[in-house]
Amino acid sequence: MNVVCIGSGNVATHMAHALKKSGANLTQIWSRSLDNAAILGNELEAKSISTFQEIDRSADLYVIAVKDDAIAEVAVALKGVEGLVVHTSGATDISILSSFKNYGVLYPLQTFSKKKQLDFANVPLCIESLDESVLDKLRSVALGLTPMVYEVDSEKRKILHLAAVFGCNFVNHMYVLSNELVKHHGLDFEMLKPLIMETAVKVQTELPINVQTGPAVRNDEKTILKHLELLDQMPDLARIYQTLSKSIKKTHS
Amino acid sequence: MNVVCIGSGNVATHMAHALKKSGANLTQIWSRSLDNAAILGNELEAKSISTFQEIDRSADLYVIAVKDDAIAEVAVALKGVEGLVVHTSGATDISILSSFKNYGVLYPLQTFSKKKQLDFANVPLCIESLDESVLDKLRSVALGLTPMVYEVDSEKRKILHLAAVFGCNFVNHMYVLSNELVKHHGLDFEMLKPLIMETAVKVQTELPINVQTGPAVRNDEKTILKHLELLDQMPDLARIYQTLSKSIKKTHS
Repeated sequence: MNVVCIGSGNVATHMAHALKKSGANLTQIWSRSLDNAAILGNELEAKSISTFQEIDRSADLYVIAVKDDAIAEVAVALKGVEGLVVHTSGATDISILSSFKNYGVLYPLQTFSKKKQLDFANVPLCIESLDESVLDKLRSVALGLTPMVYEVDSEKRKILHLAAVFGCNFVNHMYVLSNELVKHHGLDFEMLKPLIMETAVKVQTELPINVQTGPAVRNDEKTILKHLELLDQMPDLARIYQTLSKSIKKTHS
Repeated sequence: MNVVCIGSGNVATHMAHALKKSGANLTQIWSRSLDNAAILGNELEAKSISTFQEIDRSADLYVIAVKDDAIAEVAVALKGVEGLVVHTSGATDISILSSFKNYGVLYPLQTFSKKKQLDFANVPLCIESLDESVLDKLRSVALGLTPMVYEVDSEKRKILHLAAVFGCNFVNHMYVLSNELVKHHGLDFEMLKPLIMETAVKVQTELPINVQTGPAVRNDEKTILKHLELLDQMPDLARIYQTLSKSIKKTHS
């Protein structure tokens, strides 16, 4: 299977490596920046290109892993190819690719950083196609990368993408704020790492609502007041503390 | 070393088990409810009691692991004992125990649920005492439970306790909200679990601020607007989405 990867960001990098590992032949890496294309291209022994004209029109699979805003432009550039064209965006409807003969979505529900290695077996892949035979093809490609393959339509995929903002992006921001707080007082973030791990480990087997701890769920107003006093000089953190404590109380009332 | 455990909640349960495993002799478990004392007492082959009068006055160590509000009352009841008296509270000053001859703090910076087993080697313990020889004793007890022992004074311990609200309690609430969202749309929370794990794993080796992802840090207003539309029927989630997206933008601006 000859694959062209359009994009060189976090998703493109991890997806292209996983495809190669599964036995696919990565022929080209396109990026607007030839330098970025070259970095990924060298890693994968694929040709790096930076113009749409150079894209091989006879590949079996085109993986569009660019910013959401750029997908439409790439679709115009690829117009007429017969291979399977997929995008990897959580927030973008499948219909953006409807001008192609064979098209679908391959959305990885995971957080990627270029620096951080990741076993693709831990990446759930959401697949979508309106055509049964294309869906079979997509499922087989996806199962080559991970055992966790889910068939999800565009509306549900958008919900998952939003849920990931809460379960990942906002969670990481909480880590940022806790680090800010300990750093401000000369303490080491290292001390919080086991707690952070255990909090995530717990909800692998328990429903999060059943393992909520802390002053808000106990309605422990004395501790909440003490905490707000400690945040006296950090009004942004105090505001978030109040908003989230209120939300916890409401959820558990 | 004879140990009396005052309390039968999450912290008392995990702490008492860890102490027994480290070779201590758990002689009594006190709880206001004899039933609760009996559950933990049976697990540890310790006597379960529910009145202060029954407490053995000649133990080597008294571990007070009750609600913050109840520590003062327990301290009055134990008045005059010569053994080492410690509380396990993050938010309570060491001075609440200053009437004792030997006293200190043994605060576990971890989230505990009775149902969920936990290797105590993953629990950082914060110790405090104003007396060097008591501190040595405490350090030796703590190192019998975990390699992660930190000397932390009351002011700094309160900061850690507050940081744990952000890094654990608020994080778990984000999991609750993401579960609420997927459930509302007939999707399975199972799909989010690998993402939740990876988000916590990432910050074990990277600074959280360096691995922030999502629409807010990219200033991707289009996606943020789409997400707020999806939260049209869930105004509480929409408000939290806006507050935290604003905070992420401010942090990274």
